[in-house]
Amino acid sequence: MIERLCVIGVGLIGGSLARALRAADQVREIVGSSRSADHLQRAVDLGVIDRFDTDPARAVKGADMVFVSVPLGAMGSVFTAIRHSLDDNAVVTDGGSAKSSVVADVRRALGTIPPWFVPGHPIAGTEQSGVEASFPELYQGRRVILTPLPETNRKAVERVRAMWEAVGAVVRQMDVVHHDEVLAATSHLPHVLAFALVESLARMSGQREIFDYAAGGFRDFTRIASSDPVMWRDICLANRDAILAMIERFEEDIAALAGAIRERDAERLLVLFQDAKTARDAFADQQAAKPEEDDR
Amino acid sequence: MIERLCVIGVGLIGGSLARALRAADQVREIVGSSRSADHLQRAVDLGVIDRFDTDPARAVKGADMVFVSVPLGAMGSVFTAIRHSLDDNAVVTDGGSAKSSVVADVRRALGTIPPWFVPGHPIAGTEQSGVEASFPELYQGRRVILTPLPETNRKAVERVRAMWEAVGAVVRQMDVVHHDEVLAATSHLPHVLAFALVESLARMSGQREIFDYAAGGFRDFTRIASSDPVMWRDICLANRDAILAMIERFEEDIAALAGAIRERDAERLLVLFQDAKTARDAFADQQAAKPEEDDR
Repeated sequence: MIERLCVIGVGLIGGSLARALRAADQVREIVGSSRSADHLQRAVDLGVIDRFDTDPARAVKGADMVFVSVPLGAMGSVFTAIRHSLDDNAVVTDGGSAKSSVVADVRRALGTIPPWFVPGHPIAGTEQSGVEASFPELYQGRRVILTPLPETNRKAVERVRAMWEAVGAVVRQMDVVHHDEVLAATSHLPHVLAFALVESLARMSGQREIFDYAAGGFRDFTRIASSDPVMWRDICLANRDAILAMIERFEEDIAALAGAIRERDAERLLVLFQDAKTARDAFADQQAAKPEEDDR
Repeated sequence: MIERLCVIGVGLIGGSLARALRAADQVREIVGSSRSADHLQRAVDLGVIDRFDTDPARAVKGADMVFVSVPLGAMGSVFTAIRHSLDDNAVVTDGGSAKSSVVADVRRALGTIPPWFVPGHPIAGTEQSGVEASFPELYQGRRVILTPLPETNRKAVERVRAMWEAVGAVVRQMDVVHHDEVLAATSHLPHVLAFALVESLARMSGQREIFDYAAGGFRDFTRIASSDPVMWRDICLANRDAILAMIERFEEDIAALAGAIRERDAERLLVLFQDAKTARDAFADQQAAKPEEDDR
């Protein structure tokens, strides 16, 4: 049981964690913080948080669990603001989609990696954002990756793990760099491609007509291009190297495919498409068979 | 009312048209043809067709409407096979995803563009294929593009239009080259990107782990990579020039985006992502507001 949870950044991710812990009866009090009092009042009205303070240093007072779910670009300033106000038994975790940059920000803000900080990343979300889009089931059956550092207290890790498991998530641990590579491949690259594809079509003449004939595949393919631009700008800057490496790898693959089309190489095209279909079907099967238990 | 419909290629597209016309009580008899008698017998067992003949020349005998829905690579041989067996009042249309190549195939097979041929393309489908995946609602509210040529009989066009409208589709007309450009942008490029993305990830070490962490965005983004490899090989060869032009355009956009990431150009990234989100949201609104009536 969490006595007092402080959520800094009460949007889709932070709001859904608050709702889920509340629904699971795993938290006594929830304090919210962000820069906008209006926004926080709405979160109170929606029953997501109990009360709020726009000053994060005051908001974290007395909290035994702090969840920082602000855009990656704001992580450093939040940790700078709260560093002297945390309770002795407080554990702090975050929801940042890239982990090297958050760890670097914390090191810069605090001069060290404190034992009470557990870097984390719930792999969940929709193309919606804001507290209005939050819902308690968001994390059910979803992966949460924790990337503890040598300095991290083991008990702090266990408390964060217990929190995520209480809302139905499957918790895994890996190191920071590996996390960033895996996410660059599975999430950041697809988002960048979707943004670029919509961009390509939007600057064609007759954009309206183009979109009028776009079918289901395009709709699915580009849904993620409706995601929050600020968040994605921050992710691209924060996970720059891993994302650039993945874009490079993709550019090679698309160039190879274009080459096969240019040379009318029917056999090579068929092999490429068959390999991709086999891998995609295996992925779908893997998803369908995903065990919900934890294999830490 | 169609007296006798002949469907050559009884898969998702052909099978769904047969089911839809039957459900709308718009056809008296349906004859199927394809290379596999087993496959055709299954279509009979499923109630999709009434009878079949593996020889297309015999199958089209006495049909007043012929729908050719074979892979693009097989169009030429089908038209060669049926050219001398068609009834005087027969109209032939097709479901090919690229139109220049089908028109060229017909011209090659027949030495001319006959007045009874109406090139068409229903923009519908799923990543499934085969007659088992066919269903009567597939075309409801979906676009069908007809690309009649100067040689095409106007009454033939009207009969094909009436058939598609009877199954709930919204019929539009445009010229062949424009069709191929629009489809390269809205369908062929997204499919090629999805295949290439899955390919990029599949050849990473730890492929299973990569897919294990792939979230909803990736799932949506790559669903179309499960589409039929033979069909997509044929589409890439048939619509080669338009697809290569779109890949080139996309390569420029992804290179520009990578450049902004490399240079840590936060402002440019935000503008790019905001523009894409605005366009994608407008597309979603446009889809939601899509009028179902025809504005020929």
